[in-house]
Formats: sequence, C-alpha cells, structure tokens
Amino acid sequence: MKASSPAAAKDGTVSAASTNQHQTKGRLFLVPAPLDFACDTQTALQDVMPLGTLKAASSLAYWICENAKTARAYLKRVHDVTPLKHTIQEQHLQELPREVHKKGDFSGVSGAVFDARHLLEPALKGHDMGLISEAGMPAIADPGASVVRAAHQLHIPVVPLVGPSSLLLALAASGLSGQQFAFVGYLPQDGPERTQKIKALEHTALQTGQTQLFIETPYRNTALLTALLQTLQGQTLLSVSAGLTLSNAWQRSATVKEWKTQTVELDKHTPVVFAIGR
Amino acid sequence: MKASSPAAAKDGTVSAASTNQHQTKGRLFLVPAPLDFACDTQTALQDVMPLGTLKAASSLAYWICENAKTARAYLKRVHDVTPLKHTIQEQHLQELPREVHKKGDFSGVSGAVFDARHLLEPALKGHDMGLISEAGMPAIADPGASVVRAAHQLHIPVVPLVGPSSLLLALAASGLSGQQFAFVGYLPQDGPERTQKIKALEHTALQTGQTQLFIETPYRNTALLTALLQTLQGQTLLSVSAGLTLSNAWQRSATVKEWKTQTVELDKHTPVVFAIGR
Repeated sequence: MKASSPAAAKDGTVSAASTNQHQTKGRLFLVPAPLDFACDTQTALQDVMPLGTLKAASSLAYWICENAKTARAYLKRVHDVTPLKHTIQEQHLQELPREVHKKGDFSGVSGAVFDARHLLEPALKGHDMGLISEAGMPAIADPGASVVRAAHQLHIPVVPLVGPSSLLLALAASGLSGQQFAFVGYLPQDGPERTQKIKALEHTALQTGQTQLFIETPYRNTALLTALLQTLQGQTLLSVSAGLTLSNAWQRSATVKEWKTQTVELDKHTPVVFAIGR
Repeated sequence: MKASSPAAAKDGTVSAASTNQHQTKGRLFLVPAPLDFACDTQTALQDVMPLGTLKAASSLAYWICENAKTARAYLKRVHDVTPLKHTIQEQHLQELPREVHKKGDFSGVSGAVFDARHLLEPALKGHDMGLISEAGMPAIADPGASVVRAAHQLHIPVVPLVGPSSLLLALAASGLSGQQFAFVGYLPQDGPERTQKIKALEHTALQTGQTQLFIETPYRNTALLTALLQTLQGQTLLSVSAGLTLSNAWQRSATVKEWKTQTVELDKHTPVVFAIGR
C-alpha cells in the first residue's frame, strides 16, 4: 500500500486531487496561523509563513475555526500577500463548539473525543477545507485534533502545512535535549498541587533526560516563574521563551541558581513557553 | 527584566543588533532546512520555508552544520530564492564533530554535554551565525542542542527561525492528542527489547492520554510497523506519517485492528514519524 491519503500537491497549493480512491472527497488542510494573535505587534505574514501555506490558505472557501471573526481577520492578512480565490463574504466558516474551546477535544479522564464528523460535510461533498487555530499549528496545544480524527475516520486526506509552532521554536532555542521531550500542557493553578507537579516534572527531566515543556495563561506567567524558582533545584536548567517570532521576543536558558540572581517579571500579555531539563 | 537576549528583528532579517548589553556579540540563528534531504524529490523552498527565514539565512556567512557539503548545497538553493550576501566561497562552515553526529549532544546516561563553545568564536567577535541541520529544525531530533546551550552560556542571543518540523506536522495530522505528547526518539533495535518498549509506550499513552511519537531509520520502518501491529492492542490508535511536505507524502491514523486489515509496506527511503495514542 502506498497511501490511503493522496500525495500533497508538490507546490503546496490546492490543485485537483490526484487519482486515487478518494478523488471525489475534498482534503483537510491544517493551516497554521502566526503567533501574534492578541499581541500588540503583528508579524509580517511572509516572514513566518511559507508562501506554499499562504497559497493553500488563499485557495480555500470552507473552514473550521475557533472563532469566525479572528479567522476572517487572518484571511484578510493572507489576502494581502496571496489574493483569496473567494471573497471574505463567500467564505464558509464553522466554529468549533464552545465545549471544545473550553475543555479541549478530549474531555474527562476517559478521554472521550468530540465527534466532529458533521463539520466535515463540505469535504465529503468534494470541497477542500481548512482547519485553523488562533495561533500556531491547529491541533497542537490548541483545539482541532477531534476534527483531524474525524477526517481519518471518514477517509478524508489530511494535509498539514508548514508554519510557526511556539513549542518547537522554544524547544530548539532552549539548548535542552530535543532528542526526547514532552509537552505537558498547563500546570495546576492551586499552589501545593502546582509545587507537587513541578517536582514531578523535574524528577522526570533529571532522571530520564526528557525535556519537559509547559505553558501558562500569560497573566499568570510571573507567578509560575516564581513558583519554579522556589521549587526547582539549583542545578536544574530552566528555559523561558517569550513571544517567539514577535518583535519583543526573548529567550533565556540558565540554571535555577543563575535565574535567582536577577529579579524577573514577565509581561502579562506575552505568551511564554517554559522548559526544564538537565 | 525584559530580556537577556535582544529582540529578534521584526522582519526576521539579520540587521544591526538592537541596543543592549550584548551589542558587540553576534546572534545564533537556528535555521531550519526542508525535509527532502536525501529524498528523490525536492520541494520548492518557498513552499515550506518562510521568506523571513530564507532572508536571514542569505545574510549569514558563519555556519555550524552537520555536513559542510550538504549545507553548501542548501545555501545554493537559498540563493536561488533570496540571493546570498556572501558567495559560497566566502562562507565559513564548521562541522559538528563526528561524536555528536553519532551519539548526539548528550552522550551517556550521565547526560554529559558536548562543549561547543569554541565553535561560537565568530559570534563572540560580533558575527551573526547560523546553526543548521540536515533536515527540519536544528536541535530537535537532530544534533545542535549543545551549540544552543553553549550560546546561552556565552550570553549569545539565540533566534529560532520558522520552518518545517516533521514531528509537529505528524502530530497535527495524526488526530491524536496534541494537548500532551512526548517524543521518545528511536526504539531499541533488538526484538524483545523493542516489544517491551512498545508495550511501555502504549501503557503510558492509554493510561495518561499522552501521545507517544517516535522515529526509525527509513530502511527499518516496515520492520517497526510489523512489530507495532504484532504488539499493540486492537483498539490503540496508530498514526503513520510518511514523507510529510514531500510530493509522495501520506498520513494514516487508524486503530491497530483497522491497520491489520491491509498489508502495508513502507518505502525504504522515506522518513516516517510514528505515533500511538488513545
């Protein structure tokens, strides 16, 4: 078997589907967004997004998104670089339900998945579709995995497009091991629980060498950093990546002992990726 | 504290360093490469690489790479899109030592790190430098983390640039959870050891919901897939992403039970990312 999905068009654009068993179905393109959403500054789109990605996005007319308003704003930015084939008014945007925004695609310990198959109706009718998140890669640290899963169930080919991912940029820039790493999402908000989690992550990182990545809601970043410096051992490496790809981006990796020699306050609006390792 | 590293230039190009304590030092740019290395087909560079990344790469004259010959070949491809400021002959390329290629930046259980500080001499003298791997993001599932770590030790600003990462593309396209995931590198080659490792990864994925990603040398991909289908439980989800961003790319996610209904042989030369989850 060569594939159950067709080949992605070599130039990344949305062309006629190649000859295969799914030729009557549309494809699901995973369209990344820049990381500047809700930030003060905007990145020039072509600086962080390949032309192939922008071309593919500009060809589509059917979307699944978190928020139709911001998705339209993004499409306007795309239009300025690669004109849209369909006007903003002609775009069909479906929003993921609020429960998926809030609780994610997999809610509860049982991991029950939101059934997104009905959202893919246009693809079953032959239309290429785009899945887009508010920032970065859809379905990574963001909703959308349930849509991708539904596409596989319906044998709709999935084509991921290249774009920015704050997690990967932060990991590469951390100097911590990229040979083995884990992203663990958000830490608990409750103080003692958070301390316990930080200790557990440090234990894993030091014992196995697996870099541990996590994020926090921006306005809680300083509190998390304080908790990290209070809890972690002096020789543990802590990496903080703030606003990557933005004009105010910065990145620091140092031992906890070194971090403690300076008072650090993190901006309340800038997304940060934290990593600990040995 | 706002930053110990300066802001990255908003347009991603290599401009004069902003006014800060490190203004006399160059920066270390992490320059991604396309995923088509050693593959039959080549991707159009601007389809997978943002213009900002290519502009930054074309401005540099000092490099740290795995292999000078392939790095030069890549720079020639960059030149065709964004002309190099310095000729290929003028480029200074330093290769990572063979031990780092073979064993990685962190060798041994103790996690001793290769000391790469001497490679950053040009940055200490004020030259911007580029770190580049053979495919994808440097320092992720590839050598380079020791160079990034050395840069942090020397207070050389690190600027990661956007580009393709097969791991992230595979994860997004898998439909498995992107809220928590781990990349565990290569599995053991030895049969019984590999079986044990597969069972352990499946246990983690099913119990915690943490998606487990791993890779294999392409010519062993079919053997690994066979082992996975023999070892995993019928309801476990297995995702195979082959040659992402290449013209022959395909992606399939299904339960092990579904995988077993078809005979699958993986191409001996195409890189594959495997993932298991629930």
